Amino acid sequence: MDKILRIDMGAAGGPQQSTEKAGEFAALGGRATTSTIVAKEVPPDCHPLGAENKLVIAPGMLSGTAAAISGRISVGCKSPLTGGIKESNAGGQAAQVLARLGYAAIIIEGIPEGDDLYKIHINKDRVEISVDNSNKLLDNYPLIEKLRKEYGDKVAFMSIGSAGERLMASASIACTDPELRPTRHCGRGGVGAVMGSKQIKAIILDDTDCKNRQPQDAEKFKAANRVFVEGIRKHPVAGEGLPAYGTNVLTNVLNEAGGYPTNNFKTGQFDGATKISGESQAELEIKRGGKATHGCHRGCVIQCSGIYNDKDGNYLTKQPEYETVWSHGGHCGISDLDTIATLDYWDDNIGVDTIEMGVAVGVAMDGGLLEFGDCEGAIRLVRDEVGKGTPLGRILGGGAGMTGKAFGVMRVPVVKNQALPAYDPRTVQGIGVTYATSTQGADHTAGYAVATNILKVGGDVDPLKPEGQIELSRNLQIATASIDSTGLCLFIAFPILDQPETFQAMLDLLGGFYGIEMTGDDVVALGQKVLTLEREFNKGAGFGPADDRLPRFFSTEKLPPHNITFGVTDEELDQLYNWD
Amino acid sequence: MDKILRIDMGAAGGPQQSTEKAGEFAALGGRATTSTIVAKEVPPDCHPLGAENKLVIAPGMLSGTAAAISGRISVGCKSPLTGGIKESNAGGQAAQVLARLGYAAIIIEGIPEGDDLYKIHINKDRVEISVDNSNKLLDNYPLIEKLRKEYGDKVAFMSIGSAGERLMASASIACTDPELRPTRHCGRGGVGAVMGSKQIKAIILDDTDCKNRQPQDAEKFKAANRVFVEGIRKHPVAGEGLPAYGTNVLTNVLNEAGGYPTNNFKTGQFDGATKISGESQAELEIKRGGKATHGCHRGCVIQCSGIYNDKDGNYLTKQPEYETVWSHGGHCGISDLDTIATLDYWDDNIGVDTIEMGVAVGVAMDGGLLEFGDCEGAIRLVRDEVGKGTPLGRILGGGAGMTGKAFGVMRVPVVKNQALPAYDPRTVQGIGVTYATSTQGADHTAGYAVATNILKVGGDVDPLKPEGQIELSRNLQIATASIDSTGLCLFIAFPILDQPETFQAMLDLLGGFYGIEMTGDDVVALGQKVLTLEREFNKGAGFGPADDRLPRFFSTEKLPPHNITFGVTDEELDQLYNWD
Repeated sequence: MDKILRIDMGAAGGPQQSTEKAGEFAALGGRATTSTIVAKEVPPDCHPLGAENKLVIAPGMLSGTAAAISGRISVGCKSPLTGGIKESNAGGQAAQVLARLGYAAIIIEGIPEGDDLYKIHINKDRVEISVDNSNKLLDNYPLIEKLRKEYGDKVAFMSIGSAGERLMASASIACTDPELRPTRHCGRGGVGAVMGSKQIKAIILDDTDCKNRQPQDAEKFKAANRVFVEGIRKHPVAGEGLPAYGTNVLTNVLNEAGGYPTNNFKTGQFDGATKISGESQAELEIKRGGKATHGCHRGCVIQCSGIYNDKDGNYLTKQPEYETVWSHGGHCGISDLDTIATLDYWDDNIGVDTIEMGVAVGVAMDGGLLEFGDCEGAIRLVRDEVGKGTPLGRILGGGAGMTGKAFGVMRVPVVKNQALPAYDPRTVQGIGVTYATSTQGADHTAGYAVATNILKVGGDVDPLKPEGQIELSRNLQIATASIDSTGLCLFIAFPILDQPETFQAMLDLLGGFYGIEMTGDDVVALGQKVLTLEREFNKGAGFGPADDRLPRFFSTEKLPPHNITFGVTDEELDQLYNWD
Repeated sequence: MDKILRIDMGAAGGPQQSTEKAGEFAALGGRATTSTIVAKEVPPDCHPLGAENKLVIAPGMLSGTAAAISGRISVGCKSPLTGGIKESNAGGQAAQVLARLGYAAIIIEGIPEGDDLYKIHINKDRVEISVDNSNKLLDNYPLIEKLRKEYGDKVAFMSIGSAGERLMASASIACTDPELRPTRHCGRGGVGAVMGSKQIKAIILDDTDCKNRQPQDAEKFKAANRVFVEGIRKHPVAGEGLPAYGTNVLTNVLNEAGGYPTNNFKTGQFDGATKISGESQAELEIKRGGKATHGCHRGCVIQCSGIYNDKDGNYLTKQPEYETVWSHGGHCGISDLDTIATLDYWDDNIGVDTIEMGVAVGVAMDGGLLEFGDCEGAIRLVRDEVGKGTPLGRILGGGAGMTGKAFGVMRVPVVKNQALPAYDPRTVQGIGVTYATSTQGADHTAGYAVATNILKVGGDVDPLKPEGQIELSRNLQIATASIDSTGLCLFIAFPILDQPETFQAMLDLLGGFYGIEMTGDDVVALGQKVLTLEREFNKGAGFGPADDRLPRFFSTEKLPPHNITFGVTDEELDQLYNWD
């Protein structure tokens, strides 16, 4: 990863490409790379869909190596949804392929004149940027089918569906899985709209004749990888719960804890939870000839994904994630797995974030557009309105915040205009701190305090009380900003939080690869540096302390069954970034 | 004005009313009253459409007296459009009637249970709050016709159309003029949505058997009023231009100055300007048997309004204001007065701010929804989409900012999410400072630097250069916050800026009425106090320096014909509030 590909889509006479040395980014990756470049090169007050914004794509520090589960790709830009900095990462094959091609990053800048739609084909010999208007308004599944015929099966695709072309603030960038299905999405923050604004429909990554990146200290690296994999496999969450039931193993857990936001955050328990739980889902998947255990990229040793077939045994979608099952399920009062899977398919196909879309639909239900629990209605909204870009679709596709404003809804669960995920911050107060203070807007992955609050991973902090949540969220946010830079799947957090030898193995993987000594302090320093950069960008974009808050209703409306409000004070929230 | 009426719409068992002593508010009025109460009683981080927001209605300090042109009424709340504090004022009869009824303010709080629609009838003997669901979704003209049959013609009405009931962020509160037409609107900032959220359709104000408020020093007051009226009548703007051609006298002036934003702020001159100028408008009005000179309330000595009849000589709407003629005209590439008048009628009828609505339509045109200049299309959008509350109508009714987001438009002329009015800040840099820094969002009335930049009233500051604009805007914003508290029409600013004896007469009017000595320093002190309160509220609502900025395109895109950008620096903008 010694080079950076820079593409100026707005160059006079048509898109121009250039290659530059990776420099400081040769030993960086993922979120550290995207956030550093965005902070350095993008004016924080620019229009997110304008020529001044840049779309930065970066594989992780260990992507393209033999390190296990190192296939996360990061996409960074100024977010059209939050107006702040955004790093959205996904699994799939793209990170490994891009890293093997030797790129530390792709930086896409400018806006083309005219309305041509482009695709970018990258292999070891060249980069080809070409007009292909035959792809216009194709959604991801038909698009990838078409592109497979042109480019074959030994590639990875990154693409946008119609939502990205329509510049919707919930639009995602799809990355293909090993079977070349567009199922792994850089979902959050509207990164797909930024790709759409640059009129790029697809990036085709072909690493034919490229080799794995080689470690500086092969022995140390190899030994560390073995211990690392063992550590993942022996951990009850990463080695048992996730492979067997996927992330949806959490539905029953959160529902029992009373932290499962139901009917747009009105209660913390959902009657229909067991019907849509990971256990029910896995059983159904196996019964229909799908898969309950499947990896989103080669080299994954957790395999938390799966294949969800329809009633006739035909592929419908990948196994919907917990947050998707929640957003389209309990949040909307829907307890039918086939409805949820159908919505997951349409989200992936149109190319929208499943969290933002599901929350928007639930907010619209709260505004009287549909009844809670209306399965057909929910599908119609996503498929026929968002998918066809109708005015109603543009409202929903604009996200939960816009939907709330359009329909005058009081209870709009967003922070920095990004929809809250599947954990109520009143019952899981640590994740509430993360939602409020993350540079990314409401985002569970930015500092997954659910681990310690509910799963008792990495300690035990009472989820119902404010005490200890700031420190918990702070430490997790710092660690996450580092892990998001490595290319390693965030689910390694479970074993590395609980098992010191697995944490050491991660350090040794990095150290062995780059030929350095890596310590826990280095992880903290990198994470802090990334967060500081991101926070400075957000400050320039206009964010202040009042943006580091949950919506007021979490402080004024008590959530059944515990009947509590969010108890962390504003003064405490303002102490999260205490290292600046 | 020794009492305040407080109505709790959310009280158990139905709305409750109480009367309290006016206290400090007995000698205050208008914006000083509304902003003080909102700052004191409304949590800045509350949901603007929720129970914690309050709608405060206050006549001016001189309303209900014999003082000339003292009929402005202020409405305050947290704005659903900007998310900050809002004071929106209008002419019409309401202020005079409410003041004669003895109320320094009406404070409406809470949200009713259920979906009943209320009306509030206030006369000298009692206040009646009653359910009247037969008014549901009636627009302002048919509503007022219906209410006239119930309450007669000797009243003043404040009401919302369907937009307010639908909680649109552009919704206005209509105030009736002397002929009981719902033509004078508290337009900006979505105050109609706040009234809608409290489920109040109309307020009927009846001052039968009430007398004018009496001054403490009758002689001083009377003498001051005489000098004041003379001063207004002899000033070329207030005494000649405005009576003859209305505010639309500005179309030719701004177009010649190259500061007339055309086709969504792409150029500063409009080919069709003369066709829609005040001169053309007045000629047409007179030809069709309408009026080119008419007062919006009794006691007005400027008479800048008029009556616009259709081709057949029947009343169509009141004379559209300059900002309306611009927003629906040049901003949208439309040069047909009948189209603009029809849109003005529908805005008033539905109950939306003409500036916000016109700018939203122009932004939608820029986003490809219609061609610039499409008269029929523009009418269809307002009448059939906004007026019927379709999803597209909800986008447009959500304002220019929401429209820009829904259609992925780059050039979105808003500050604090409120649409810019009819003066390009690149050519009239003083008004750019006001747009950027006002507590109200982009608002020309908050500090009308056009006066000094273009009309050469109150001095001469070169409109094309940044020098002197901060001081100009600061002084005007301070003076305006005071004038907005008096109930006097802002157009008195022209004579009081130019004629020291008219300024002194205004001081003596206030001094004579309240039996005090009033000086220029008092005016400044009151204005600063109001602005400081408003700014503190906005800070609590999350506003910081980055919110005191124009959209970036004003700094990066040069405006023909002068080909200049907005030149006032961020550092200078941050010096506007220098007295804190």
